[in-house]
Amino acid sequence: MSKVKSSPKLIKEGKLSYEWARSHMQILDNTINRLKKSKPLKGITLGFCLHVTKETSVLLMGAKELGATVAVCGGNPLTTQDNIAAFLASQGINVYAWHGQSVKDYDWSIDQVLKHKPTILTDDGADMNIKAHFDKRFKDMEVLGATEETTAGVTRIRAVENQGKLRYPVILVNEAVTKHMFDNQYGTGQSTIDGYLRAMNLLMASKRVVVVGYGWVGRGVASRCRGMGSKVIVTEVDPVKALEAHMDGFEVMPMAQAAKIGDMFITCTGMTSVIRKEHILKMKDGAIMGNVGHFDVEIDADFLLKKSKSVKEVRPTLDECTLKNGRKVYLIGQGRLANLVSAEGHPPEVMAQSFSNQLLSVLYILKNHKKMENKIIDVPKEIDIQIAFDALKAMDVKIDKLTPEQVKYANNW
Amino acid sequence: MSKVKSSPKLIKEGKLSYEWARSHMQILDNTINRLKKSKPLKGITLGFCLHVTKETSVLLMGAKELGATVAVCGGNPLTTQDNIAAFLASQGINVYAWHGQSVKDYDWSIDQVLKHKPTILTDDGADMNIKAHFDKRFKDMEVLGATEETTAGVTRIRAVENQGKLRYPVILVNEAVTKHMFDNQYGTGQSTIDGYLRAMNLLMASKRVVVVGYGWVGRGVASRCRGMGSKVIVTEVDPVKALEAHMDGFEVMPMAQAAKIGDMFITCTGMTSVIRKEHILKMKDGAIMGNVGHFDVEIDADFLLKKSKSVKEVRPTLDECTLKNGRKVYLIGQGRLANLVSAEGHPPEVMAQSFSNQLLSVLYILKNHKKMENKIIDVPKEIDIQIAFDALKAMDVKIDKLTPEQVKYANNW
Amino acid sequence: MSKVKSSPKLIKEGKLSYEWARSHMQILDNTINRLKKSKPLKGITLGFCLHVTKETSVLLMGAKELGATVAVCGGNPLTTQDNIAAFLASQGINVYAWHGQSVKDYDWSIDQVLKHKPTILTDDGADMNIKAHFDKRFKDMEVLGATEETTAGVTRIRAVENQGKLRYPVILVNEAVTKHMFDNQYGTGQSTIDGYLRAMNLLMASKRVVVVGYGWVGRGVASRCRGMGSKVIVTEVDPVKALEAHMDGFEVMPMAQAAKIGDMFITCTGMTSVIRKEHILKMKDGAIMGNVGHFDVEIDADFLLKKSKSVKEVRPTLDECTLKNGRKVYLIGQGRLANLVSAEGHPPEVMAQSFSNQLLSVLYILKNHKKMENKIIDVPKEIDIQIAFDALKAMDVKIDKLTPEQVKYANNW
Amino acid sequence: MSKVKSSPKLIKEGKLSYEWARSHMQILDNTINRLKKSKPLKGITLGFCLHVTKETSVLLMGAKELGATVAVCGGNPLTTQDNIAAFLASQGINVYAWHGQSVKDYDWSIDQVLKHKPTILTDDGADMNIKAHFDKRFKDMEVLGATEETTAGVTRIRAVENQGKLRYPVILVNEAVTKHMFDNQYGTGQSTIDGYLRAMNLLMASKRVVVVGYGWVGRGVASRCRGMGSKVIVTEVDPVKALEAHMDGFEVMPMAQAAKIGDMFITCTGMTSVIRKEHILKMKDGAIMGNVGHFDVEIDADFLLKKSKSVKEVRPTLDECTLKNGRKVYLIGQGRLANLVSAEGHPPEVMAQSFSNQLLSVLYILKNHKKMENKIIDVPKEIDIQIAFDALKAMDVKIDKLTPEQVKYANNW
Repeated sequence: MSKVKSSPKLIKEGKLSYEWARSHMQILDNTINRLKKSKPLKGITLGFCLHVTKETSVLLMGAKELGATVAVCGGNPLTTQDNIAAFLASQGINVYAWHGQSVKDYDWSIDQVLKHKPTILTDDGADMNIKAHFDKRFKDMEVLGATEETTAGVTRIRAVENQGKLRYPVILVNEAVTKHMFDNQYGTGQSTIDGYLRAMNLLMASKRVVVVGYGWVGRGVASRCRGMGSKVIVTEVDPVKALEAHMDGFEVMPMAQAAKIGDMFITCTGMTSVIRKEHILKMKDGAIMGNVGHFDVEIDADFLLKKSKSVKEVRPTLDECTLKNGRKVYLIGQGRLANLVSAEGHPPEVMAQSFSNQLLSVLYILKNHKKMENKIIDVPKEIDIQIAFDALKAMDVKIDKLTPEQVKYANNW
Repeated sequence: MSKVKSSPKLIKEGKLSYEWARSHMQILDNTINRLKKSKPLKGITLGFCLHVTKETSVLLMGAKELGATVAVCGGNPLTTQDNIAAFLASQGINVYAWHGQSVKDYDWSIDQVLKHKPTILTDDGADMNIKAHFDKRFKDMEVLGATEETTAGVTRIRAVENQGKLRYPVILVNEAVTKHMFDNQYGTGQSTIDGYLRAMNLLMASKRVVVVGYGWVGRGVASRCRGMGSKVIVTEVDPVKALEAHMDGFEVMPMAQAAKIGDMFITCTGMTSVIRKEHILKMKDGAIMGNVGHFDVEIDADFLLKKSKSVKEVRPTLDECTLKNGRKVYLIGQGRLANLVSAEGHPPEVMAQSFSNQLLSVLYILKNHKKMENKIIDVPKEIDIQIAFDALKAMDVKIDKLTPEQVKYANNW
Repeated sequence: MSKVKSSPKLIKEGKLSYEWARSHMQILDNTINRLKKSKPLKGITLGFCLHVTKETSVLLMGAKELGATVAVCGGNPLTTQDNIAAFLASQGINVYAWHGQSVKDYDWSIDQVLKHKPTILTDDGADMNIKAHFDKRFKDMEVLGATEETTAGVTRIRAVENQGKLRYPVILVNEAVTKHMFDNQYGTGQSTIDGYLRAMNLLMASKRVVVVGYGWVGRGVASRCRGMGSKVIVTEVDPVKALEAHMDGFEVMPMAQAAKIGDMFITCTGMTSVIRKEHILKMKDGAIMGNVGHFDVEIDADFLLKKSKSVKEVRPTLDECTLKNGRKVYLIGQGRLANLVSAEGHPPEVMAQSFSNQLLSVLYILKNHKKMENKIIDVPKEIDIQIAFDALKAMDVKIDKLTPEQVKYANNW
Repeated sequence: MSKVKSSPKLIKEGKLSYEWARSHMQILDNTINRLKKSKPLKGITLGFCLHVTKETSVLLMGAKELGATVAVCGGNPLTTQDNIAAFLASQGINVYAWHGQSVKDYDWSIDQVLKHKPTILTDDGADMNIKAHFDKRFKDMEVLGATEETTAGVTRIRAVENQGKLRYPVILVNEAVTKHMFDNQYGTGQSTIDGYLRAMNLLMASKRVVVVGYGWVGRGVASRCRGMGSKVIVTEVDPVKALEAHMDGFEVMPMAQAAKIGDMFITCTGMTSVIRKEHILKMKDGAIMGNVGHFDVEIDADFLLKKSKSVKEVRPTLDECTLKNGRKVYLIGQGRLANLVSAEGHPPEVMAQSFSNQLLSVLYILKNHKKMENKIIDVPKEIDIQIAFDALKAMDVKIDKLTPEQVKYANNW
C-alpha cells in the first residue's frame, strides 16, 4: 500500500542509514525499548506528515514496534530521502513519498495517509491537520488528537483555534523546551551550515551573512555562522529580538540596507516574503540566498526562477539566476529548506529529543483524550523535564539536586 | 532628613558620576524629559530600596523631576557609593544609606524610608515589601502597589502571594524581557568580569571558572568568561538548563566534582548554600570564590570567615582564608554581590532599560491601581515593547516592519 | 595523452565546477588575465602533482593560458574529482588521475608526468620531487626549480637538503604567510567541518573533539569546532604550542588521556602514528576519527581496517570497525584527508591565494633560476605582500597607509 | 638612596601586593628559589627601567635574592604604583619612582639609576638604553649587555643598530615566543578590558570598538572585546595583518572611515599619530579613546587636551574634551598606557613568563658576554622552550612526547 521509489540497493542503503540514526538517538531508542513489550499503540492507526529522513524512520519504526499501524507522507516535495522511504515500505509501513514530488503529488500523498483513517495525526507544518479540518472528505473523520512539530505549523493551528474551528486537541510539540531550544537552535544551526557548504562550497570566513529573523532558528544559525568566521547581520521586525541580536554583537539593520552588502542570506522567519524583488534587485553580483524556514514562501523564488533573464543549475541544488540588471544571484534548493534539500537535515541526537516529545505526546493523547478539550496545549511539563533528564543521562552528564534546605528556602520569603 | 556620609568633595564627585550615568542612560533621560512638564508624580511619595549607585541616582532624580517626594535606602550594606548618596541628599532626596552599614543599620534605614509613608514601593530583593507586609508598624500603611527588581525578590513575593497574604499589587519588573534578558545577562556578565578583575587581578585565560547556575545571570557570566579565554564549567539543578549549558559547549558537572578542579567560582543562582563547607574543603589551594546573586547566602561565608585558621584581607574586598586543611582559598566581598562590592555594578546603558521599566511601572500603578487586584503581575507587554523600541532608537538601530501582506499571512492558516 | 575516467556528462559537470571555482578565485583569475597576452610560459612544460579539484583546475587552465604545456597527476589516490579530470583532459591538459587509484596507479601517474620532462615541478607532499631526485630514470632530468605546497612536503624536502642532495632550488610555497595562514588555517578549518559533517552527519555541539596538533591547521580546526559548539581538547608535543592552546581556552592533555574521553578525533600534525593501537583500544564505543594532515600515516588505519573483528562501510567514506574488545569505532576515508575524501577540499577563495603563490613562484623560478642556488627558499616577500594586497582588493577591503611622519618615526630611535 | 613616596601604610600595602603577585608567578618564583643559594648575581649591579608594579617587584626582589645590587626607575610617569615603590625601597632596593612624575622627574630618575653604574640594563621602551648610548655622562660607562621588553623599544634599538652605533649586546626579550605571544596578546588583551572598564564603566556589548593595529597586542585586544560582545573594527597598514583580521571575522577599514562610527578606540600599534586631529574631528559625540601601546604618541593628546574648548576630568583617568565642533570626546589616561594608568597592568601569571625571560637573559649575558658581539639577538631558543615547559608544569598541564619512530620520521624524506 506504499508508493515510493524502491530497489534492493535503496532498501539496503536505507537500512544502514536507519541503523546509523537509531544508534545515535539513544533516548528515543530507550523509550521504544522500554515500552515495546506492552504494545501501547496496538490497534491504533497513526498518520504522519514528516520529512522522510533517517531520523524520522526511527520514530516510525518505533511507533510500529509499539503496535501501531503507520502511514506517512513527506513533509515537503524535495526533502524525502528515497532510500529511507524504500526501507520503511519494505518494513510494512505505508509510505507515500518520493524525492521530487510535484505539489499535486504531495497533496495526493496526504490524502493517502488520511484514507488510512489515522486517529492521531503527527504533523510538520500543519498541512495534514488543515486538510483534516477543511477538506470535506476528511472533516468528519474521527481524530483523537494531533501533534505539531514546527513554529510555522503552530502559527496556522493557532489561526484555526482563534476562529473557533479546532475539532480535536493539538499538542504543540514545538513549544516543548527540549524541542525548540535544541532542534530549532542547535539542530538548524548545524544543518544550515551543512546545507550551505554542500550547496555552494564557498568560504564562510570573512563573508557577510544576513540572517533573517532572530528567533530560536535565527539565533542558532547566527551563532554557527559567527563560529565559521562570518560577519553576521541580523534583520528583524520584533524590537526585543532585534535588541538582543544587537547586544549579542551582531549588526542589526533593515533588509533594504542588508540586501546591498550581504554575501549570503539565510531566511529563518516562518513569515512570508522576507526577501522580496525590491531586495533582490539591490543585491551584489554573486549573492547567494536560501531558506531554512518551514515553507518556501520566505524568498520570492518565483521572481528569481521565472523573471530572470536566465536560470542555470551551476551546482546540485544551486540555481544561478541572471537578473535583468545583469547581476547573477544564486538560490539554494528553489527556496525550500536548504538544510534538508542540500544536506540531510538535523543530526540524529537532536531529533531524538524532538521525536521523543512526539512519541510521548502521542501516547499522552491516547491516554488522556477523553478529558482533553479541543484546544491547543503545550507538551505537558513533566514530559519536557523527563526528556531533559533522559538526554543528560544518554550523554553521561550528571547534575546537582536541591538539598532539603534549599527546597525550603525556595518556598519561603 | 537624610543620613549619609557627606562632604563637599563627595557631593562634587557624586554629581560628576550622576552626570556621567545620565548622559549614558538616554532612554530613561528621554522619558523623564518627556514627562517632566506634566509632573505626573506630584504629591506622591515614593519609597526605594535599591543599590545606591550612579545609575540609581538617575532614576531617583527623575522621580523627583516628575514631582515625587523621594526616600531611599540602600539595597545591601556594602553596595552604597557614598558620593552618590551625598549628592542625592544635597538635592533634597531623603537618603538613608552609607557604605559599610551593619545589618542593623540597614534594617533601620528601611524603617526610615517607610516612615515617609510612601504609597508606591520600588524594591530590590523584597526586604522593604516584606517589612511592609509583616512588620506591625507598617502593615496597615496605605500602599497602592510596588515593583520588584530581582529574581531573588520575585521568589519571595511569590511565596507571600502563595500564602494569600499579598496586600497590594506588585509588578515584577524582573520579568520584563527588556529587564532580565539585558540587565541579568549582559549587565551582570560585564560587571562580574569587572568585579573579579578588580578584586583579584589574575589571569582569566586558561583558568577553570565554575559558574553556578545557568539562568539569565549564569549564562551572561559564562559567556563573558569564555570571552576572556577561561574554561567554563557550569553546575545546575535544572535538567533543561543543564542540557542547554552542555549544548552551548560548556562542561556540566555536579559541584562536588567541580569544586576539586575550579580555579574561580561565581555563584549566580538566587538559591541558598550552593557552595557549602563540603565543597570548600575540596577546593584547590588558591581557589577564589564570589557571588553575584542578590543575597549573600549562596556561599557559606560563615564557614570561611569564622571557621578558618586565619583570615587576612590580601587585597581590597578579597579575604584569604587559611583553612584547617592548610589550603588557602579566597572570598570576594564577604560573599556579597561581587560586581557591586568590588566594582560599580552594571553599566548605565543596561540600567537605563531596567529603570525605565521601573519608572513606567510606577506610573502604571499610579494610573491603574484602582482596577488592579492584589496580585503579582508582569510588566505590561506594551511597556516592554516600548522600551525595546526606545533602546533601539537611542542606539540608532533601525529594524524592519511587517508589510500588510505579512500581517495577513500571520493571521491566516 | 591523458588517462582519466571520462564521459560527456563528466566533462560538462567538470566544466561547471571549474567555472564556479574560477569565478570565486578572483585574484588568481586577475593574475592570469593580466599575463595571458604575453604568454610568459610559452614553450615551458610544467609538471604538477596536486589534488585534482575544481580549484586546481583553475591553476592548470591558467598555466595553459599563459602558454605552458601542462601535465598533472593527483596528489592522493582518493582525492581526484573525476569530472574535473575529465574536463581538464578535454582541454588538452595531460591528466593522469582518477578517483580510487591504487598506490601502484598513483606511482605510475607520477611517472607519466615526469616523462613529459617538465622543467618546473609543482608538488603537494613532495612525492614528485623525491622521485625526481632518487629515481634513476629521472634523476638526471633537467629541472630549473620546484615549488612545494604543504607542511608535510616541506619536512621531506628539508631532509633532502640537510643531506646535501638537493639538485635544484625549491620554493616553499607553504611558508608564504598568504598561504599557510589562510589555506592551512581558514581553508582546512572550514573544509574539515564540511568533511566530517558529510561523513558522519552527527551533532558537533556538546561533543568532545580531540584536535591532534596545534599548528596552523590544528588551530584553524580547533577554532571552527568550537564555533560549532564542541568542547575541544588539544594534544601537542611542542610546549609553546601547547601553552598557546591552553591560553586559547582549550583543554590540553596527552593523547593517552584524550583517547578515553573524545567523541571525535581529528589529526592535524604532519607526523606519523599520532593515533596508535594503544589509543584506539581506549576509545569509547562510537568514537569517530579522521585525518586532515597530508599523508595517511597519522592514524593506524592498518590496525583499524585489518585487525578488527569486522569492518563495514556504514555511510559513504565511513568505516565501522568492530574491535576485538567489542567496541565500535569509526574511521573516515581510510585515514586519508577527510576534507578532500568526504567533501570537496578548501573553498576556492582560499585556494586563490595558495595558487597565486604557486603561479607567481613558478614565474619567479623561470626568471631567476640562473642566479638561484640549489637551496630551499621561501616565497619572496614581495610576492606574499602583493597577494595580500590583491586579496584585499578582490574583497573590497581598504586599509591605511603610513604617513611620511610615521615612516620617519619607524626609522628613528 | 631611594626617592619614593613612602609611609608605613604604603609599605604594608605594597608588601601584601608583592606577596599576592609572587604567589601567582610560580615559574619566576621557582627559578629564583632554585638559584638563590648560589647567588649568581653577587657583586653585580643591575639597572632597571620598568613599570613599577607588583609583578615587577617580584623580578626585582628576585634579582636581589640572587645577590645583585638593584636600582630601578619607572617606565612611565603615570604607571608607578606608589605602594610597591615604597615597599621595594624598604627592602634596600634603590628606587627612583613615584606616581605622577613630570617628564623632567622621569628623566632625572633614569639618571639616578645609571649613576649606580649598572653593568646590565633591563629596559622597557629603550629610554635607558638610548641614554646609555647617547648621553655623554654615561656613554663610556661599562655595560656588559642589556635586555629590552617591548615592541616599541625593539624598534628604537634596531634603529641604533642599523646606524652601527650599538655599543653592547642587547637581547630582545620581546621576541621570545613565551613573551610576546602571551604578554602582548593575552596580557594586554585582559588588562585593556580591565583598564577601559575602570576608566569608563560603560557597556561594551553592542558597541563598535575600533582596534588600531592587528599585531600581537591588537589581536589580543580584538579577541577580548569580541568576547565582551562588542562589534570590533580593525584598522591596519600591513596588508597581511589586515587580511587576517578580515578572515577572523572583524570589519577592516581605514581610520578615516572607522573614526566616524566607532564608540571606543584602542590604539595598539607602537607607531606615532595613528589617531590624528582629522580623525578626532569626525568622531561621534561620546566617543572614547585610549592607548595601550608603549608610548603616548599614538593619539594626538595635545590636540585633545590643549586645543579643545574645555577639558574636564569626569571620572578618574578620564578627560572629557569638548571640541570646537561642540562634540564631547573622551581620552583615557592622557593617552598613556590605559591598562597601567587606569588598572594594574598585566596579571602576574603572564608577567611570570615575561620576567623569567628577563631574568634568564640577564644571567645569559653575565655568563656569555665575552663571546657576544655588539648586536641585537633574540632570546636563546632553549630559554624560550624551558619557560614554556616550566609554565605548563606550573599550570599542571601534561603533553605528549615524540616517540623514537616519530623522531626518525621527522628526519626522513
